[in-house]
Amino acid sequence: MPKNPLKHLYSREALNAQPSAIRDICALVARPQVRSLAGGWPDPAKFPIKEIRRIFDDLMVKHGDQMLQYGSTEGLEDLREVLAERMKAEGQNDAAPENLIITHGSAQGMHLAAQVFIDREDVVIVGLPTYFGGPGAVHSRGGKVVGVPVDRDGLNPNRLVQDIKHLKAAGKRVKGVYVIPNFQNPTGVTLSLERRRQLVHLAETHDLVIFEDDPYADLRFEGKHLPSLKSMDRKGRVIHLRSLSKTFVPGVRLGWAVGESGAIRQMVVAKQFSDAATNTPAQYILLEFIRQGLLDKQIQENINFYRAKRDFMIEQMDRHFPREATWNRPRGGFFIFVELPNNMDAGELFRRAVDKNVAFVTGQPFFVDGSGHNTFRLSYSQVGEDDMAAAIQIIGNLIKDSLAGR
Amino acid sequence: MPKNPLKHLYSREALNAQPSAIRDICALVARPQVRSLAGGWPDPAKFPIKEIRRIFDDLMVKHGDQMLQYGSTEGLEDLREVLAERMKAEGQNDAAPENLIITHGSAQGMHLAAQVFIDREDVVIVGLPTYFGGPGAVHSRGGKVVGVPVDRDGLNPNRLVQDIKHLKAAGKRVKGVYVIPNFQNPTGVTLSLERRRQLVHLAETHDLVIFEDDPYADLRFEGKHLPSLKSMDRKGRVIHLRSLSKTFVPGVRLGWAVGESGAIRQMVVAKQFSDAATNTPAQYILLEFIRQGLLDKQIQENINFYRAKRDFMIEQMDRHFPREATWNRPRGGFFIFVELPNNMDAGELFRRAVDKNVAFVTGQPFFVDGSGHNTFRLSYSQVGEDDMAAAIQIIGNLIKDSLAGR
Repeated sequence: MPKNPLKHLYSREALNAQPSAIRDICALVARPQVRSLAGGWPDPAKFPIKEIRRIFDDLMVKHGDQMLQYGSTEGLEDLREVLAERMKAEGQNDAAPENLIITHGSAQGMHLAAQVFIDREDVVIVGLPTYFGGPGAVHSRGGKVVGVPVDRDGLNPNRLVQDIKHLKAAGKRVKGVYVIPNFQNPTGVTLSLERRRQLVHLAETHDLVIFEDDPYADLRFEGKHLPSLKSMDRKGRVIHLRSLSKTFVPGVRLGWAVGESGAIRQMVVAKQFSDAATNTPAQYILLEFIRQGLLDKQIQENINFYRAKRDFMIEQMDRHFPREATWNRPRGGFFIFVELPNNMDAGELFRRAVDKNVAFVTGQPFFVDGSGHNTFRLSYSQVGEDDMAAAIQIIGNLIKDSLAGR
Repeated sequence: MPKNPLKHLYSREALNAQPSAIRDICALVARPQVRSLAGGWPDPAKFPIKEIRRIFDDLMVKHGDQMLQYGSTEGLEDLREVLAERMKAEGQNDAAPENLIITHGSAQGMHLAAQVFIDREDVVIVGLPTYFGGPGAVHSRGGKVVGVPVDRDGLNPNRLVQDIKHLKAAGKRVKGVYVIPNFQNPTGVTLSLERRRQLVHLAETHDLVIFEDDPYADLRFEGKHLPSLKSMDRKGRVIHLRSLSKTFVPGVRLGWAVGESGAIRQMVVAKQFSDAATNTPAQYILLEFIRQGLLDKQIQENINFYRAKRDFMIEQMDRHFPREATWNRPRGGFFIFVELPNNMDAGELFRRAVDKNVAFVTGQPFFVDGSGHNTFRLSYSQVGEDDMAAAIQIIGNLIKDSLAGR
């Protein structure tokens, strides 16, 4: 058989689809001898294995028949109620079971939102840099993404306005903004309160949808929780996407989306033909986990655990990285983003590091305009202290070597 | 807030999306007092609750950390190997882990295949009638579906050729055929061996993809297993979609797709931005269930169980339905399809039945051309014998009433 015999029948989006470079890097460096600061996976040491075993067994004895049956497309009603209550407690005053859909991770939430809102050639504005999930979902609909710089306070709204005007003047249909407000992947940066207000206001004045991807919302190590964009939204402009991968467990693939009820209803219809329903046992387990008060406990433990990991990594970086490299101190989440002098290439650093069995993720794949050659992302989420210390020292020495022209 | 304030921002596909009428009917009649022959859900009496409890607990003790972590997008490698072996044993000689993707049900398999192959305005040919999943996935990509009659031997290939020629002459791009070869939903009809050969041949001569949706493959009550279209496919034209919802449990949302490796690779890329990965614990449970030889045992028990249910329903129909109503005797699966005289309306029958707390699904929503007003689908999968007998008697009497002009 010839290679790709059906290629001439592929859709335009399939022909243009690029596998995630970051996933490919993570797969490449998943060898056991590699000290990896690459993947953004949670540490299994924090998985509530004992509690899940107990809950699953109890539920299966009581009503295994419901646990293993198909569920409704929008998700278990009791779970939607509980999650809506939690969203209300966070300031999303109109959160209700009717405007909340349970999804296979926030990834599916974004995918369904893109199905509802994105037509071919529609433009969505994203951060430079940004996590690839948003752009990937937009591309899967034939849409385009345009990047706007992320600085210390997140996505820059002034640049956003300029870009929207230019794009509209060029005849483009700008549909929305994809934003990760808290401890953004890959920069760890949090969108400031002032900018959150500006962004919600901009959505109204420029007729946009905001895709608020907020998987790290609960993982704040210090400082006050900032209100979500959704909680400031009076016009139904924000689709708020959440995940349990970082605070419960990722393997069960649970997340949810909250939005204006008409839009959520459209996402439910899209899900009917996407995968029909979300895993039922996972939903029952989560519901019981929340009802027993275990999720809040789990979140608090995760905060303490990952805060200590962040502190340790920054300590090591302070010690081993030369002052020519700069980075932020994220107030939550999993990531630290490093900027090297402009004449340095993080790709070259990556290759040298892999030779020494150390891995991270280069920054460039996170920049939709192809910039960021001198940046890279470090994750403290999954690696233990000894490996972290050794890896940071090796990377630090490689940067110093490079600065010295070695 | 106005109703649907964001409607002007919806994508074309969202504006055209119709929620599944069948799902709506099933939700409508899900009241406890209703004797329902509507839903195509498996009977929870057959769920292997005890075995799943034991396997889950054992696995969690041994490696809960892996069980609850993210998995790869294509699915657990060991599970793909085991499933590929099973496909080989069924005659799909080139099945291998590299050309198999694990999905959230066969619904997601079809959705991903549509993303890879369907562009706006592309045409896919489907049965008249057909399960709504195929058309729904095609519509979600802006594609069109055209119906070709299903008779006692399944989709009629001669009509297919005629239609392809007409469509091509009218400038349409015909991309593929969506077919449910075994015990089709809603008719229960099986595609004959001869027609399978013709269809695979047609795909080559007319440059088409075949979406072979085969969720009932393992539920054959009698007669010889017919080879899948995939097993006859030498040119990589068939995407074979499978589900475990009818033979294991539906709640875990597991299925898989087998196809030419380039196309499967494209489906993996599409899944990266769709939901990133399939539920990990469900995959581990299934793998262990298969390794312990429990799946084959479960399938055999299901065959015996549902065969007895089919026999019982047909017995009741023979007894209570007037000879003016006709139906088939499915050799597997969940469904019996009834045809009334042409001057009768199954929708009216449905309303009268619901008044008597009996439900089924009208045939019309399964016909993409809006025909089938005098047909309806009965499912024997979920209902117990007493309720089945009572429901069939009530429906039979209502048909008799209608024939008598009452």
